[in-house]
Amino acid sequence: MTVFVAVQQAGYTDTMLPSREARLACRNGMASSTAGVANGFVQGNLAILPEKLAGAFHRFCQLNPKPCPIIGMSEVGDVSIPALGLDLDIRTDVPRYRVWRDGEVVEEPTDIMQHWRDDLVAFVLGCSFSFEEALMDEGLPIRHIERNVRVPMYRTNIACRPAGPFAGPMVVSMRPFKPADAIRAVQVTSRFPSVHGAPVHLGHPHLIGIDDIAKPDYGDPVQVEADEIPVFWACGVTPQAVIASAKLPFAITHAPGLMLITDLRNKQLAVL
Amino acid sequence: MTVFVAVQQAGYTDTMLPSREARLACRNGMASSTAGVANGFVQGNLAILPEKLAGAFHRFCQLNPKPCPIIGMSEVGDVSIPALGLDLDIRTDVPRYRVWRDGEVVEEPTDIMQHWRDDLVAFVLGCSFSFEEALMDEGLPIRHIERNVRVPMYRTNIACRPAGPFAGPMVVSMRPFKPADAIRAVQVTSRFPSVHGAPVHLGHPHLIGIDDIAKPDYGDPVQVEADEIPVFWACGVTPQAVIASAKLPFAITHAPGLMLITDLRNKQLAVL
Repeated sequence: MTVFVAVQQAGYTDTMLPSREARLACRNGMASSTAGVANGFVQGNLAILPEKLAGAFHRFCQLNPKPCPIIGMSEVGDVSIPALGLDLDIRTDVPRYRVWRDGEVVEEPTDIMQHWRDDLVAFVLGCSFSFEEALMDEGLPIRHIERNVRVPMYRTNIACRPAGPFAGPMVVSMRPFKPADAIRAVQVTSRFPSVHGAPVHLGHPHLIGIDDIAKPDYGDPVQVEADEIPVFWACGVTPQAVIASAKLPFAITHAPGLMLITDLRNKQLAVL
Repeated sequence: MTVFVAVQQAGYTDTMLPSREARLACRNGMASSTAGVANGFVQGNLAILPEKLAGAFHRFCQLNPKPCPIIGMSEVGDVSIPALGLDLDIRTDVPRYRVWRDGEVVEEPTDIMQHWRDDLVAFVLGCSFSFEEALMDEGLPIRHIERNVRVPMYRTNIACRPAGPFAGPMVVSMRPFKPADAIRAVQVTSRFPSVHGAPVHLGHPHLIGIDDIAKPDYGDPVQVEADEIPVFWACGVTPQAVIASAKLPFAITHAPGLMLITDLRNKQLAVL
């Protein structure tokens, strides 16, 4: 597992980074989508589990790095993740959480102070916001961003490798591209394995169990034009779907689209 | 333009490389396809032009590096290309040549001793054999090799950038892949820009002017199965098509499939 190092370890401790500013705003009650917030900084999917389940979840991520790329995790019971952010408190710094009991969301609070326990482990997983920034830097148009809707996501027939109680199909996100742009998108996102990396499929949705591209299982539909091909990336919703279907007694995640903003720069995640 | 250095410059002068052995066989009259010959060594497309046209052709290659990646060229009137092979003689070491006059092939000799002139410049351009080796090393199946036919090639509606009398459409070669393999093929061939590099198109042949995938303009047709997508690479036949349509008074090329075998290793061409 790659280990990333946030900027405070490079001597930036006095600087109020836009990422830290955003986390402090969340801590003070801001509870809106983090899309477009603190541009250039890595945002992450969150999964918090009791220690007795954390080992199996960690193995699940290890076995399924494309949907579940770990960019940081906490020590047991520790609310900080120094590698991901200065002064980060995982109990308060995400805009909105989901508290799961027996596979159901029972609450969507803006902090989890009341739910925190000394046996909890927090996992932060890479998110497509990072590679979307790289695609847009390259001049590649991203349909759902242009349309100001959520990315369409689909449950597939691609089985994740199971670990302990964690099992289920991979969830993918879809972005349509003209063919030459799709080729460029493969190249660009290949540089970012810690935020889902290269696509897992393109061109034939039905081959991965998607019967109707117009009906995503999560997010909003976007049009795939006749001169485009749909390109599919492994999606960070996968662990939430898996946590739901495992019907764990207790887990906490972020609410979709309301992510943890870290002090890592998206550019730091490029392997080339 | 990248400059490559063949192995004799690294102290291998005493070794009879399989590539040199193949060139000597050609010099002695062997005139068969070089597919599968001297595996691991770079093979090249050949274009020989009078000096007064060579400048424009060089610019054409510079402007169109995907179909026309230069891996070596001779000094004016020089029959050797030291960077590409020990003891290489461009007049004899290709299995079969094509002599062009006014845009027509007038002869297909096994050497060009009688045609050589002191004003000629030889260009050696990268060829898909190199990236096909890389694809096969990766375990990706290549349909036309499995079927033992020539790769299907198509004239497209993608215009090359013109230079002097050189102009015309890009010719592409096609290999069908299952979607995940197509993504891997983009990654693998991206490492080899000097032998056409990443694909130029995938998925929608008609968008690049290919009306019937079953009817290639050169080579042999291969089936694209329902669970596959056609992937298109810029092809080294492009300069021959351009030389033909430029109706140059005089030019020499290799005969298709009967290439110049160099002492460069395919692996040396990888940029990563």
